[in-house]
Amino acid sequence: MESRIRGGVVPPVCTPLTPDLEVDTGSLERLLEHLLASGVDGVFALGSTGEMAYLTDAQREQVLRTTTAVVSGRVPVLAGVIDTTTPRVREHVRVAERAGCDAVVATAPFYTRTHPAEIAHHFRLLAESTELPLFAYDIPVSVHSKLSAATLLELAADGVLAGVKDSSGDDAALRGLLVERADRGLESFRVFTGSELTVDTNLRMGADGVVPGLGNVDPDGYVRLARACAAGDWDAALAEQERLVQLFALTSVGDPARIGASSSALGAFKAGLHLRGVIDHAVTAPPQLPLTVDEVDGVRQRLVAAGLL
Amino acid sequence: MESRIRGGVVPPVCTPLTPDLEVDTGSLERLLEHLLASGVDGVFALGSTGEMAYLTDAQREQVLRTTTAVVSGRVPVLAGVIDTTTPRVREHVRVAERAGCDAVVATAPFYTRTHPAEIAHHFRLLAESTELPLFAYDIPVSVHSKLSAATLLELAADGVLAGVKDSSGDDAALRGLLVERADRGLESFRVFTGSELTVDTNLRMGADGVVPGLGNVDPDGYVRLARACAAGDWDAALAEQERLVQLFALTSVGDPARIGASSSALGAFKAGLHLRGVIDHAVTAPPQLPLTVDEVDGVRQRLVAAGLL
Amino acid sequence: MESRIRGGVVPPVCTPLTPDLEVDTGSLERLLEHLLASGVDGVFALGSTGEMAYLTDAQREQVLRTTTAVVSGRVPVLAGVIDTTTPRVREHVRVAERAGCDAVVATAPFYTRTHPAEIAHHFRLLAESTELPLFAYDIPVSVHSKLSAATLLELAADGVLAGVKDSSGDDAALRGLLVERADRGLESFRVFTGSELTVDTNLRMGADGVVPGLGNVDPDGYVRLARACAAGDWDAALAEQERLVQLFALTSVGDPARIGASSSALGAFKAGLHLRGVIDHAVTAPPQLPLTVDEVDGVRQRLVAAGLL
Amino acid sequence: MESRIRGGVVPPVCTPLTPDLEVDTGSLERLLEHLLASGVDGVFALGSTGEMAYLTDAQREQVLRTTTAVVSGRVPVLAGVIDTTTPRVREHVRVAERAGCDAVVATAPFYTRTHPAEIAHHFRLLAESTELPLFAYDIPVSVHSKLSAATLLELAADGVLAGVKDSSGDDAALRGLLVERADRGLESFRVFTGSELTVDTNLRMGADGVVPGLGNVDPDGYVRLARACAAGDWDAALAEQERLVQLFALTSVGDPARIGASSSALGAFKAGLHLRGVIDHAVTAPPQLPLTVDEVDGVRQRLVAAGLL
Repeated sequence: MESRIRGGVVPPVCTPLTPDLEVDTGSLERLLEHLLASGVDGVFALGSTGEMAYLTDAQREQVLRTTTAVVSGRVPVLAGVIDTTTPRVREHVRVAERAGCDAVVATAPFYTRTHPAEIAHHFRLLAESTELPLFAYDIPVSVHSKLSAATLLELAADGVLAGVKDSSGDDAALRGLLVERADRGLESFRVFTGSELTVDTNLRMGADGVVPGLGNVDPDGYVRLARACAAGDWDAALAEQERLVQLFALTSVGDPARIGASSSALGAFKAGLHLRGVIDHAVTAPPQLPLTVDEVDGVRQRLVAAGLL
Repeated sequence: MESRIRGGVVPPVCTPLTPDLEVDTGSLERLLEHLLASGVDGVFALGSTGEMAYLTDAQREQVLRTTTAVVSGRVPVLAGVIDTTTPRVREHVRVAERAGCDAVVATAPFYTRTHPAEIAHHFRLLAESTELPLFAYDIPVSVHSKLSAATLLELAADGVLAGVKDSSGDDAALRGLLVERADRGLESFRVFTGSELTVDTNLRMGADGVVPGLGNVDPDGYVRLARACAAGDWDAALAEQERLVQLFALTSVGDPARIGASSSALGAFKAGLHLRGVIDHAVTAPPQLPLTVDEVDGVRQRLVAAGLL
Repeated sequence: MESRIRGGVVPPVCTPLTPDLEVDTGSLERLLEHLLASGVDGVFALGSTGEMAYLTDAQREQVLRTTTAVVSGRVPVLAGVIDTTTPRVREHVRVAERAGCDAVVATAPFYTRTHPAEIAHHFRLLAESTELPLFAYDIPVSVHSKLSAATLLELAADGVLAGVKDSSGDDAALRGLLVERADRGLESFRVFTGSELTVDTNLRMGADGVVPGLGNVDPDGYVRLARACAAGDWDAALAEQERLVQLFALTSVGDPARIGASSSALGAFKAGLHLRGVIDHAVTAPPQLPLTVDEVDGVRQRLVAAGLL
Repeated sequence: MESRIRGGVVPPVCTPLTPDLEVDTGSLERLLEHLLASGVDGVFALGSTGEMAYLTDAQREQVLRTTTAVVSGRVPVLAGVIDTTTPRVREHVRVAERAGCDAVVATAPFYTRTHPAEIAHHFRLLAESTELPLFAYDIPVSVHSKLSAATLLELAADGVLAGVKDSSGDDAALRGLLVERADRGLESFRVFTGSELTVDTNLRMGADGVVPGLGNVDPDGYVRLARACAAGDWDAALAEQERLVQLFALTSVGDPARIGASSSALGAFKAGLHLRGVIDHAVTAPPQLPLTVDEVDGVRQRLVAAGLL
């Protein structure tokens, strides 16, 4: 349960695909090297940004094995083990263990209707089933429940959770969690924000790190941002964050009358990586729909404006 | 795509478990014989009531293989192939095909945020990938989107969908669907209601059948109800339905301050089957929490009142 | 608290407006006579269909005074007294009393976040404040909470509520309410459905009446439907209901990319009344946006298809 | 449309009530002096914290008249003009004008289902109807829609809106709004956060001020916090904010199994003001339920811990 994952920038790695929808391991390798070269502090494979929900179990295992092989211990590898309930998540935990990952990241149950006591029970059962550090992934937009500070810190105090990735976007709740964490002396419980847009302010509040989807496209920016925060250079952090806020607008290039938010954001990340020459194809998994030529051009313009092309 | 599934009572079969959380195939066999003896018109394995979301892939396959072996062609077997997105659902379709199922039942994508055009694309890709009839499963409480009549009938007209299981509880929308289906001459698209409480009225509107979770506990009641509807004996149907409404109160025995709605309803179905001597254990899968002794006694009282004990 | 309102068809009366957004009392008078001529059993002024949420207090009082004057005791007049909380609702109750209405209809509090115990308290305080029969209006789409059968029947047993208008669209919950009402011998608590599309089946379940917005446009249809149900002629009821389902499609003429559901449905009701020569103007209140000429033509086509033009 | 309201601390003033539920003007006067003595930059009467939704129109007018009389031009008075739709809001605007308020604050329509184009139309009509500066109040938890940056800045550019009070809690969206505001040179459009817990970080992002409900209880704290931010003393701001985060826990003293979130938070603010000797009674309006003696003692303990008693 002792965790090497202390904080910093831990991008949720995109999963490059080939045109026939197989995992593009060559591109994934280049993407990982691109991230490591920027100085990231860890990588998170099979998060929402990694299209975990769109990959078969065989593909998920392939992603984890490729990732640990490429990373080869240079930084910790966190593995998403996201599925509907405890028994199914445990299967993914087994795979993550066999692939040599350093930690696992699980959401609350979804599809089912689950009581908070059952959510806590879920995390306790998962922790009992593995030696790997367990992180909670708080993502109400996907699982339709919110992890409370009370639940998280109870599980932290009992050694169940090593930390949380907070993708709730609820910064007031995050603030409450961070203050209560300090009050209870539970700082070994590590808090990562999943927001691309409030990194400086979330780290200012005491969060330990960030898991930014946009960090696939511009890892240098997020590493600079986190280092400025760590150094207490809040003015530099503010300027870097504001540049990244402008870049983040690329996630909205997709026409909402035609495609979903996921197709737009993940399509834009992959288009950006393709335009920057990191991956071979900007393909996203079905039933997501591709960006149009004009929308990809919108991504290009954002990259140019941000100095990335 | 030609479907043997025309209507009637198609219970979503519970998945009996052993105390060590393995599929209890002996109990499952007895449960299936209990249903078939009542004259059900089909069985639906791996629905929400079947705790599909709580079973590993190996367990899901075991359930399907046991079900097709026991049923042995006496009625059609529908297989839930429920997962987050198209590529993952396709894996379950392969398993259902190999297990000899007669049709597959898929929801809209969940966990992800999906545009209606992407939901239609999802069903089209699934239909292209199999010879089995494909049913849509409309369950907003779990997937957080609603399938519109326009989408369903477009997919019906194009031969993509053989039917729908409507668990939305939105009877006004169901009415609209049924009237528009008739207007467009698409009656080969079969409509099943997932509601235990409005079977007489839904069949009266023109629905073809019902997939009642409570039908595990009292299949005779639902078969009598559907037959009364088919015979146009609406007074008998009303009386039978009202008896079943009273029985359905067993799904609320669980204290909502302590456990979730799923633990309460699925726990009560299994407790009822155990009390009636059909299955060996009332165990539900984690992280669901068990009913208390008093709550099980509440189930018993409801069974006695309904003449089932 | 003794109520004359026993059941049948009680349309939620549209509020005709002049082009300069005043209450068009001449048109309102003709609309009321049009409804009474069809044999409706009561009228409901200042419901959601009556654009209550868009009218000033002075206009609301004017609507009530005009309505009671025109109706003049021929049928009961129910008055919507809808506002955010108890003190504000009480003000509307005073106005309804002074205007000579026969009953008041109140929702749960909205805008605020209210506990079920506080919702019950709200209705108790309202009942204490008036001699008029009090009906609960269950409309989750507007107030974002659902009135449970347990709460409603507790308030019925205590003489707080004379009945409910159920616009939740949750027919399974309605069924549960009706069966429990019968079990507890509380039939003096009257249940009206707010659904235009499930009147035959809701009355079949035991509901006492219907409050159909579409009944403004075609009161004859709803009166025929309710009378067929009362006479036990369910085949005639089915045919009439299905005709009304087709007519109801006029509520969707508005382009959802351009205007809201309220603008579309209320705009279509008023366009239908204008096309049928009942009211002088199809104007709706701001910030609703008007139907286009093509959309009004869509309303016309539906009226022609239904034999109303 | 030129606005004196530039930023800083603008508490949403509680509305003290007497035991017989009248506005307690003496207590309101003392509360306003308590706020002004702390150096607040404005006061916001009739916000959600001011129990606007629980007050009759006469009481609302009484609150505004008392407030402007007491404040007497020392700081700007913003008036909540919150109601369901444009015509009703306009009535409140008239009252605010007559009472001598300096600006009005309106939400999007609620109760009704409103398209974004209709929301923009709503604000345009309101702005046309008054000379007072108009602020938008973004509070999705109450009105169930979110104001987008695109809509707000379009209305700002057109001179419709003088600013926004953002009570959405969506700090990523707030960040996007602030960066786009700067990009478009629209800084005259003033942005206030409604969050008590993220003031330092929201001001760091560029927000101009804060409207903190907790500022009723501890205005000195919020004034110190805002002044530290203005001075660029972010460490002092952090310490003050974290103290206020701990104090904010008083809003959760109410047992959620017994009363709603509004009863708990507003009850705690009033209990705190009563314990501090500012107001005579801690009464909240019906149907809110009062805090228990033990819960009030929880408020007292929080005040002691924060150095306020």
